[in-house]
Amino acid sequence: MDSVKDEDLELLLAWRSHPDVYRYFHAQSSPLHWDEHYKFWTTRKDRLDWIISVDDGIRKRKVGSVNVSHLSSPAPEIGIFIGEVTLMGHGVGKRSLKLVLLYLKSQGYLRATARIAEGNIPSQRLFGSLGFVRKEKIPDADAYLYELVF
Amino acid sequence: MDSVKDEDLELLLAWRSHPDVYRYFHAQSSPLHWDEHYKFWTTRKDRLDWIISVDDGIRKRKVGSVNVSHLSSPAPEIGIFIGEVTLMGHGVGKRSLKLVLLYLKSQGYLRATARIAEGNIPSQRLFGSLGFVRKEKIPDADAYLYELVF
Repeated sequence: MDSVKDEDLELLLAWRSHPDVYRYFHAQSSPLHWDEHYKFWTTRKDRLDWIISVDDGIRKRKVGSVNVSHLSSPAPEIGIFIGEVTLMGHGVGKRSLKLVLLYLKSQGYLRATARIAEGNIPSQRLFGSLGFVRKEKIPDADAYLYELVF
Repeated sequence: MDSVKDEDLELLLAWRSHPDVYRYFHAQSSPLHWDEHYKFWTTRKDRLDWIISVDDGIRKRKVGSVNVSHLSSPAPEIGIFIGEVTLMGHGVGKRSLKLVLLYLKSQGYLRATARIAEGNIPSQRLFGSLGFVRKEKIPDADAYLYELVF
């Protein structure tokens, strides 16, 4: 996984504008506008973003993104999506999440969290398979907080 | 406009996988798979592809693609799409098409063509505004050939 660079912003925008990707996003229900995307990117704080890549033996390619926010809290929040929509459900997200959890442990964190929409069964299964447990409902959202204690 | 480079392939895939983009494609009715995309790209012949960019004064960004195929015929075929879906209908395609027409004229071509789906009103208007005229129906497709004589 590599850090997201400025030159990746068009790709992130394209991925985040696909209905199969943003359908479970908390703060987005239509394709993303560049201005909003760029403003978010250039003002984000307390957060790391990586590009998820796969290598099929012919070419390494970028397929999605994973991030950790609220890094100054004791339980950072993980977000993830596969932007190459035909690759969803092939285990790429799980491998990336494991790397993020290793990173957080190496930094001394004792817990990680995720917000997962009520209808987002794939993410519930993914995070559940790594030990995340459903906690309280997020106020004013059809989503729940999930938590992993290392 | 810059030529499409290998490093743009993920972005092209993401754009071509958006339902608002591929809805009028002749040979595609669902998100594109990487393998198919890569095979097409690495074996394409007789064709040029460019990236369409816009500069908002803060950052130049990639927003779509335009191509010319059948370059060995007397009337090459132009294809175009805006991949940044929220930018559709803002005149970016028209500016790019004009550049492509200038290029074809400079190369000595006397005609250009386009295949436009029957329901694709935006493209019919766009190409029509540049002088393209509807010709015969494309066999086995809900599309028409459009032609411009320079």
